[in-house]
Amino acid sequence: MQPIPNASLDPDDWTDLRQQGHQMLDDMFDYIEHIGQRPVWQPIPDAMRQAFDEPLPHSATPLAQAHARFMTQVLPYAAANSHPRFMGWVQGGGTPVGMLAEMLAAGLNANLGGRDQMALEVERQIVHWMRDLFGFPDTASGLFVTGSSTANLMGVLVARTRALGVNSRVTGLGNASPLVAYAASTAHSCISKAMEICGLGSQALRLIAVNAQDQIDTQALAQRIAADRAAGLLPFLLIGTAGTVNTGAIDDLAVLADIAHQEQLWFHVDGALGALGMLAPDIAPRLAGIERADSLALDFHKWGQVPYDAGFFMVRDGTSQTDTFASPAAYLTRHTRGIGAGSPWPCDLGFDLSRSFRALKTWFTLVCYGTDKIGAVISHTCALAQTMQQRLQDYPDLELMAPVALNIVCFRFRCNDADAVNAEIVADLHESGIAVPSVSSVNGHTVIRAAIVNHRTQASDIDALLGAAQALGRQRLAAQSVIAEQPTSSP
Amino acid sequence: MQPIPNASLDPDDWTDLRQQGHQMLDDMFDYIEHIGQRPVWQPIPDAMRQAFDEPLPHSATPLAQAHARFMTQVLPYAAANSHPRFMGWVQGGGTPVGMLAEMLAAGLNANLGGRDQMALEVERQIVHWMRDLFGFPDTASGLFVTGSSTANLMGVLVARTRALGVNSRVTGLGNASPLVAYAASTAHSCISKAMEICGLGSQALRLIAVNAQDQIDTQALAQRIAADRAAGLLPFLLIGTAGTVNTGAIDDLAVLADIAHQEQLWFHVDGALGALGMLAPDIAPRLAGIERADSLALDFHKWGQVPYDAGFFMVRDGTSQTDTFASPAAYLTRHTRGIGAGSPWPCDLGFDLSRSFRALKTWFTLVCYGTDKIGAVISHTCALAQTMQQRLQDYPDLELMAPVALNIVCFRFRCNDADAVNAEIVADLHESGIAVPSVSSVNGHTVIRAAIVNHRTQASDIDALLGAAQALGRQRLAAQSVIAEQPTSSP
Repeated sequence: MQPIPNASLDPDDWTDLRQQGHQMLDDMFDYIEHIGQRPVWQPIPDAMRQAFDEPLPHSATPLAQAHARFMTQVLPYAAANSHPRFMGWVQGGGTPVGMLAEMLAAGLNANLGGRDQMALEVERQIVHWMRDLFGFPDTASGLFVTGSSTANLMGVLVARTRALGVNSRVTGLGNASPLVAYAASTAHSCISKAMEICGLGSQALRLIAVNAQDQIDTQALAQRIAADRAAGLLPFLLIGTAGTVNTGAIDDLAVLADIAHQEQLWFHVDGALGALGMLAPDIAPRLAGIERADSLALDFHKWGQVPYDAGFFMVRDGTSQTDTFASPAAYLTRHTRGIGAGSPWPCDLGFDLSRSFRALKTWFTLVCYGTDKIGAVISHTCALAQTMQQRLQDYPDLELMAPVALNIVCFRFRCNDADAVNAEIVADLHESGIAVPSVSSVNGHTVIRAAIVNHRTQASDIDALLGAAQALGRQRLAAQSVIAEQPTSSP
Repeated sequence: MQPIPNASLDPDDWTDLRQQGHQMLDDMFDYIEHIGQRPVWQPIPDAMRQAFDEPLPHSATPLAQAHARFMTQVLPYAAANSHPRFMGWVQGGGTPVGMLAEMLAAGLNANLGGRDQMALEVERQIVHWMRDLFGFPDTASGLFVTGSSTANLMGVLVARTRALGVNSRVTGLGNASPLVAYAASTAHSCISKAMEICGLGSQALRLIAVNAQDQIDTQALAQRIAADRAAGLLPFLLIGTAGTVNTGAIDDLAVLADIAHQEQLWFHVDGALGALGMLAPDIAPRLAGIERADSLALDFHKWGQVPYDAGFFMVRDGTSQTDTFASPAAYLTRHTRGIGAGSPWPCDLGFDLSRSFRALKTWFTLVCYGTDKIGAVISHTCALAQTMQQRLQDYPDLELMAPVALNIVCFRFRCNDADAVNAEIVADLHESGIAVPSVSSVNGHTVIRAAIVNHRTQASDIDALLGAAQALGRQRLAAQSVIAEQPTSSP
């Protein structure tokens, strides 16, 4: 086969493409500007779903046509975490600024695995900002990743390498003393998964009981560590949570830091939900102790409102990060000039050599809104949760099910068979399009959970959720009593 | 603190934001349209680098100002893999269509960890397309990831779970029979890293010698497996490479599939570079055997020209993937209606719960260009490599250093101390802005490597690289001889 004279995927004449691109941008501005007027969610009709069960597209389709499909077949059937009445899970709302920055990143098409490029300086800028925000020293290193599931896995890996020595990368776990790690029973399931992935196994993660505030019980923790040591095991890692997904509880990080220090454990903080509370003056004091973490996971796409995905991992002692992830052969022979300079590279600090420019949308978000404003949004979501707790008193059929620690409110509709009924109410709420909370479990009870993360959410959205939850609960009870009163079917 | 009446990060008046957004889009169209007229790369001045060493931005900066910084401080100092004369590493060029699709994804701000949303149907569409393209059965499952480093790690993990049983997720590696894996000595370093991460250790990866075509020596492989079994070890995984980074070599995948079948090994193919060659009629036959892989890693951001990042992982028997990654507690209690329906979710198939909508830019790329055209681009890059091999004969000071197997050409400037001089020539080329090849090593020799991946690259770009390499080599020799002739400094 011969080279093609013009194989480029760029158009010969850019006029139509540009015009179509501007139309696409306007459509997205329209979507975001008016998102609150849409249903939060709607069921996907079967026929619509089948639109994405086609054969491999051998021939070209005009961009306008592909875009039309996006507008009619994808956009209306989104999970819509950008919507002000989405409160189902801890997910940020995104911003138009973040969208535009992501467009720039995609046009630049940078691969941030390495090399001497300014994109990496933008990423390093965010690392320095986070170092300053969390009181980490100049020796700290950091890296953008997809999200905290990956960042928490990296925390486990760095701790494992520190416990077993760098040579364990070569030898594997072998017959090393059995390592054990500690976290609250309410810690995110990705911690357990990280233990599986790294080969230690989930049973090597001790899930410690929590107190009435859903924080890890530090006495029970100390006892378990002592018992494990007595049994010949090797405690190596303590994981604190800054904001549990269920109730927003923040472990007493200062006490955990003390225990980690005394017991010589690696202290990792899962701050996926709560770490960026450092930007909010009324939340930051509750994170005291986070500045003593050995490593930290957080997500800019939650409270930071950066579009998905933008997770972040930081290590106090940067050497531990390169010791865990850098390939010495590549790392030590890096060039000193040309595009191959600029060591260390991100590929020395994590898994990936192929990495999109997540730092850019984060930089634009922090710079264009300012961190004080982001902090104010964070405070606002917590204040809304307090408002919601108060408003619940106005709804006689609803009851609060857990203390409101941060920005998450768990409640339910009072009735017989409440577990089953409340699960149905949540699905009814989804199908109504009015609001999206989620089903969760608190102290063995099925609850309706509202996680208030989105900057667009207002007090009126809270009222809409509570009003609809009560009304749909009553409808469901009424329907049940109608069924109960119906005669059995005639013969 | 009270809720703020309007905490939203959206503007009250969208006029300015819209206008600025359209300016940003036009700037990116301009950048891509005229990218060939820029230097491929230029050194970053120290003062420019320091622009990204600022304190945390507490107050807001106008978007226009942030964008101006991007245009003047970031864009000119890119690694520029979108440039037609970037041939340094195996990286795709991106497209304006991919950029626009990524903008849509960022505006939608979907999190593809789970839930019943149409974005997941788009991802499933790509899974079905890849299933068909690679001849995988209907039971195959797949997932977008950042890149093949992660996809290869997932392949190792699925193979590990299959070898040790699902309960090994709970128990860890423990005292299991020592598992060993096999790959060519030219396999990507991420395979070794995957062995480290999963706890087996890099020494459990047997790096097998290669033949003259840089393919794994299947006789040496068979001998090593037999020797390991005789030593009481447990061979569990064979990794074939479809396109090595150094020379583009493709292992004999059909023979590897036979060996894996006979030896009951998990057969994983690292197709980061070459798997999408299935779209090119003249390349596809060389991938024969890939349809028998148990799992497969590939990157759409390389030959697929999708903007970074868009890696992909696929498993023949989908049950093995959920057995490895799903949390049974969550997976088995998924809802059947409302937004919480639609199981299995991507979080059951991999690490991440936070996942951006990588499938959308991939869908737009495949649909809008058509897979025949993408295949033609792939053939074109291989034809250009053949052209380059021929043209090398016109440059008396340059010599080919490895057989051209696919789309990668390794050559060097002939001279004394060639290893050192060629490394300098590559840096000179970078600094010239004319072309970006990379330094690599073939059979112990330092070589200049050109990986032709970008759809924008033409024969004239090949000539520009070869001409500049020869000219800069001659300049460097001349400068050396001047230095040699200079008298030693006077006392």
